[in-house]
Amino acid sequence: MVYVGIDLGGTSIKAGLVDEQGKILCKATCPTLVERGARPVVDDMAKLSLEVIEKGGYTLDDVKAIGVGLPGIQDPRTGIVPFCTNLYWHEVPVIEWMQETINKPIYIGNDATVAGLAESVAGVSAGIENSVFLTLGTGVGGGIVLGGKVYSGTNGVGSELGHMITVIDGELCTCGNRGCWERYASATALIRMGREAAEKHPESRIAASVNGRLDDITAKTVIDAAKAGDEAANEVFERYVYYLCAGLVNIINFIDPEVIVLGGGVSHAGQFLLDAVNRRLPSMVFYKTMPYARVALATLGNDAGIIGAAMLGR
Amino acid sequence: MVYVGIDLGGTSIKAGLVDEQGKILCKATCPTLVERGARPVVDDMAKLSLEVIEKGGYTLDDVKAIGVGLPGIQDPRTGIVPFCTNLYWHEVPVIEWMQETINKPIYIGNDATVAGLAESVAGVSAGIENSVFLTLGTGVGGGIVLGGKVYSGTNGVGSELGHMITVIDGELCTCGNRGCWERYASATALIRMGREAAEKHPESRIAASVNGRLDDITAKTVIDAAKAGDEAANEVFERYVYYLCAGLVNIINFIDPEVIVLGGGVSHAGQFLLDAVNRRLPSMVFYKTMPYARVALATLGNDAGIIGAAMLGR
Repeated sequence: MVYVGIDLGGTSIKAGLVDEQGKILCKATCPTLVERGARPVVDDMAKLSLEVIEKGGYTLDDVKAIGVGLPGIQDPRTGIVPFCTNLYWHEVPVIEWMQETINKPIYIGNDATVAGLAESVAGVSAGIENSVFLTLGTGVGGGIVLGGKVYSGTNGVGSELGHMITVIDGELCTCGNRGCWERYASATALIRMGREAAEKHPESRIAASVNGRLDDITAKTVIDAAKAGDEAANEVFERYVYYLCAGLVNIINFIDPEVIVLGGGVSHAGQFLLDAVNRRLPSMVFYKTMPYARVALATLGNDAGIIGAAMLGR
Repeated sequence: MVYVGIDLGGTSIKAGLVDEQGKILCKATCPTLVERGARPVVDDMAKLSLEVIEKGGYTLDDVKAIGVGLPGIQDPRTGIVPFCTNLYWHEVPVIEWMQETINKPIYIGNDATVAGLAESVAGVSAGIENSVFLTLGTGVGGGIVLGGKVYSGTNGVGSELGHMITVIDGELCTCGNRGCWERYASATALIRMGREAAEKHPESRIAASVNGRLDDITAKTVIDAAKAGDEAANEVFERYVYYLCAGLVNIINFIDPEVIVLGGGVSHAGQFLLDAVNRRLPSMVFYKTMPYARVALATLGNDAGIIGAAMLGR
């Protein structure tokens, strides 16, 4: 049997035909065009599903299930998607609409959750029972796999790890609270801290590498300058790693996974990031002589969304 | 079949014979006398077990398992208790020693975890699959029940909810980090904040009710003064509730349990505490229109330790 996985983002809809082992057999994509509303987007997801099945040389009979990863959540009581903020979706019956065209079991998962599932099936945490996946991107997304299965909580509102309050009364978050972890551990946070440092230190490599155009500073600007030994950049990066580790420690002290997988933009810093985390983390964990979660880099990259969505139905 | 539950504390060892429904049939107790070291304490736990079995009119054949709740953790790889800070225990083979006297399955759990299990079997969260239990006492202890079973993590180091960093760079914690939740949400924190307020406001009811002897201020002093409408006390209490809710929100955003149970000293504030939490929490949860965890008061009190320990073997 094969599976269809759909990665629904604000820019494009990506679909893939995926085998039992999480290997992508073929792919198809189309633009999301958010502005046309939910219904045509869902119809396109169904159309793309049929397209990849045919492209792969299979028929609907060979397909066990279809999975959709999206930037929102599903209400486990109704199967409806109550919110998809980036897509301006509100109360969208994704499963019902898709099943009008394709009579197959359809599963829905949050994009970070689905990426975590992908890593736990075919990536760096393959075969591991309990893992936590983090996307360090515009925000911080979280995916929890417990006992080999996606864990989204009783009401489907769990694993919002970016919204752990770690700096009470700190930076205002889009969620209305202050001091959420993602205000300090996302790529956005690293950029903000990098710009502040460049403003204070116009002689720094961060500022120089963008010719003083501070708006051009990206996470990579800061990381590259830190790698090159720039003092201001290193200070920012160490501070960022401290914030990151605060949340990692919270995850360890809370559900004690076997592995924490780092994905998203900042994770492209690679071993440089991992080394910094592994210098800081040991002194912060609670039980200092007991084993605790290994921190690893995601390996599936952009394919994680398709693979994980497909694996929802496995 | 019946179970033996043992609640090992720094002052006393309490044992109870417990039925399948979590009802205590009879109890026995003796002083812990920490200073004599681990071996005699473990021997007394075995002796008390036999005592309650006999007292209840049962024989060893009627006993399915023995459970021990203690202020520490068990290494799931070895069954050994690596730490029990308050008891000065280090690498104690509790199960091996007890089984020299009693040839029965023996289970070990952290005291807060065990109390949470008790509530989920015979208390306020009875029959609920996913719940989190908190003791708001000297520190903040956490117990997680997922799918009706105790969850302690991959390495047994999870559910240390009091050590979530919520106030980065905040108050120094005994664990070495700064800003752990228990520095802000424990009874100890409420007392500290109450003393500071009384110092600043010698005219306040907090200060008056202890005749200015600020060392006599307890959590109850602050709560009683707040209930009586004292302005300084209310300010402290509202601040405390804000800190408490920050951690509750983190728990909801993380594992989204069905119920969060509050136990320990501060929970004796009862409905007054619950009302304050329920005023603050709704504006802080991430998905404001989705259902989220109900917050409830523990109902089993001091018996939770015995009942929960017994239920480890169920």
